[in-house]
Amino acid sequence: MDNLYEFYNFLDLAGTFVFAISGAAAAKQRGLDLFGICAIAFTVACGGGIIRDICIGAIPPAGLTNWHYLVAAIIATAMTIGLYPFVQRLNHPVLLFDALGLSLFAVTGAQKSLAFGHNAEVAVLLGITTAVGGGVLRDILLNRIPVILEKEIYASAALLGALIVVLGNQLQWISRDWVSIIALIVAFGLRLLALHYHWNLPVYSSEKSEKD
Amino acid sequence: MDNLYEFYNFLDLAGTFVFAISGAAAAKQRGLDLFGICAIAFTVACGGGIIRDICIGAIPPAGLTNWHYLVAAIIATAMTIGLYPFVQRLNHPVLLFDALGLSLFAVTGAQKSLAFGHNAEVAVLLGITTAVGGGVLRDILLNRIPVILEKEIYASAALLGALIVVLGNQLQWISRDWVSIIALIVAFGLRLLALHYHWNLPVYSSEKSEKD
Amino acid sequence: MDNLYEFYNFLDLAGTFVFAISGAAAAKQRGLDLFGICAIAFTVACGGGIIRDICIGAIPPAGLTNWHYLVAAIIATAMTIGLYPFVQRLNHPVLLFDALGLSLFAVTGAQKSLAFGHNAEVAVLLGITTAVGGGVLRDILLNRIPVILEKEIYASAALLGALIVVLGNQLQWISRDWVSIIALIVAFGLRLLALHYHWNLPVYSSEKSEKD
Repeated sequence: MDNLYEFYNFLDLAGTFVFAISGAAAAKQRGLDLFGICAIAFTVACGGGIIRDICIGAIPPAGLTNWHYLVAAIIATAMTIGLYPFVQRLNHPVLLFDALGLSLFAVTGAQKSLAFGHNAEVAVLLGITTAVGGGVLRDILLNRIPVILEKEIYASAALLGALIVVLGNQLQWISRDWVSIIALIVAFGLRLLALHYHWNLPVYSSEKSEKD
Repeated sequence: MDNLYEFYNFLDLAGTFVFAISGAAAAKQRGLDLFGICAIAFTVACGGGIIRDICIGAIPPAGLTNWHYLVAAIIATAMTIGLYPFVQRLNHPVLLFDALGLSLFAVTGAQKSLAFGHNAEVAVLLGITTAVGGGVLRDILLNRIPVILEKEIYASAALLGALIVVLGNQLQWISRDWVSIIALIVAFGLRLLALHYHWNLPVYSSEKSEKD
Repeated sequence: MDNLYEFYNFLDLAGTFVFAISGAAAAKQRGLDLFGICAIAFTVACGGGIIRDICIGAIPPAGLTNWHYLVAAIIATAMTIGLYPFVQRLNHPVLLFDALGLSLFAVTGAQKSLAFGHNAEVAVLLGITTAVGGGVLRDILLNRIPVILEKEIYASAALLGALIVVLGNQLQWISRDWVSIIALIVAFGLRLLALHYHWNLPVYSSEKSEKD
């Protein structure tokens, strides 16, 4: 039980950290000031989780009440500012960090919703929300159409991860830890494959070029 | 009592469905992918109601916990994608569906707020929020100024519908069902008339053309 | 005790009023209609407080349930529309009103979070949220990058005010009223100085001009 709790904690903090780095990098590229970078980093890192906690009745949201999250966001901001040349040299670091955070948050979001006694649908929807909510808020704040609505398979990877968590918990063939690990690997793998092979969901309109 | 409950349920699902169609059509026109269309459809359909439920303490929000809503949104998405030529041939279908959903949600939003024991002001404000919240979220996600803040009498129709619900419930001259039906007809009628005759609320600035 | 309560009430209403004026002025400049101006005024005035109340579990949010706020927002809207030449003649009135509302809300937001029994971190984060939340929502609705993420020391002033409230309440050297007054003066003074001398937080990117 303690192990499980610590495992969730670790997943959550790791997800927070990588999302904060992706947020700080995007904010820095847009020329925001120090507070702006920190605010976007914190929003990407905790925004999805805060929405989830409000919806499942976990008041106050963990993102606000647990200083671990804030410190993780601040360290990520400092790293992104101080070690930017290093961060930049990594190949597509933002995309990689983003894919890892995405998968981690889909799994922890679904697990926490189930732990609060909500049904499978809530767990799946809030797993996705936890995973993509921060990124959607980032794109809204940076005044662009959320990238998850247009680009490669992204939220679909979170959906798959959350679905595996819900099914795994209902079937109970394996322990909850293993369910989380498998869901994490599958979602992360799908996202990486989609990035590499530019897998896209179908688009049904030919009007895009005219509209933009 | 059962009748009332079923009547609300029907209104709510019908509103969900027509809003989802209007959301899916807007997302399709912007060239979003399959998930993007589905997400916008669900957001328009359930966004206002989820905000209302969070504000009145109905946790978890019905939009997340009741699979009826999700299925209604998915069917609406499939219809919009599969039968788009048909949907398009209807005269201004998005506007008509939108007007119907607007009126339905203003009424059910105000009724649910009262049913949770909140006061008249909360009921009016959350009636409007339920009605226009989804559309505002859609416009924020599609990166444009919410159409309700600029165009013909729209939120005002929702305001009128919610006001009739609150007054009707306080005066108790007629049954709650009839109050809902009258509020619905008045709000829908006002919105249709405003659309047809291009009724607008006053604008107080001549600077718009310079600003944009 | 009664004095304290009335003092908070007064601060809250004054903040509501000045924020509503700044919101109405911005909406009027963008050419929104009567409802749009009123909605933006109400959003700027109550948006931050409503987010705070949802996060601390104060359901329904005071901004929705207390008619004082709505009336303050409506009067501010009427004043901005009716007396616009007068409002405009004041030197940078929007900025001044905004600075006052910012400081007031940071203090009352932090105090209310503490009064609901939450910890120092929640109080600081929600003090900032109360202060800048309405303005961020205004900029999202008006479809621009929130000004607080790019411009002079702004949210930092709210952060300072909220920090003073939290420290003052923990040290208990002086009464809660005096803590509020000092925090208010310091935050307001810092914001005015930042406006006057164009103090900015550091920006770490030279890519801004290329990106925009």
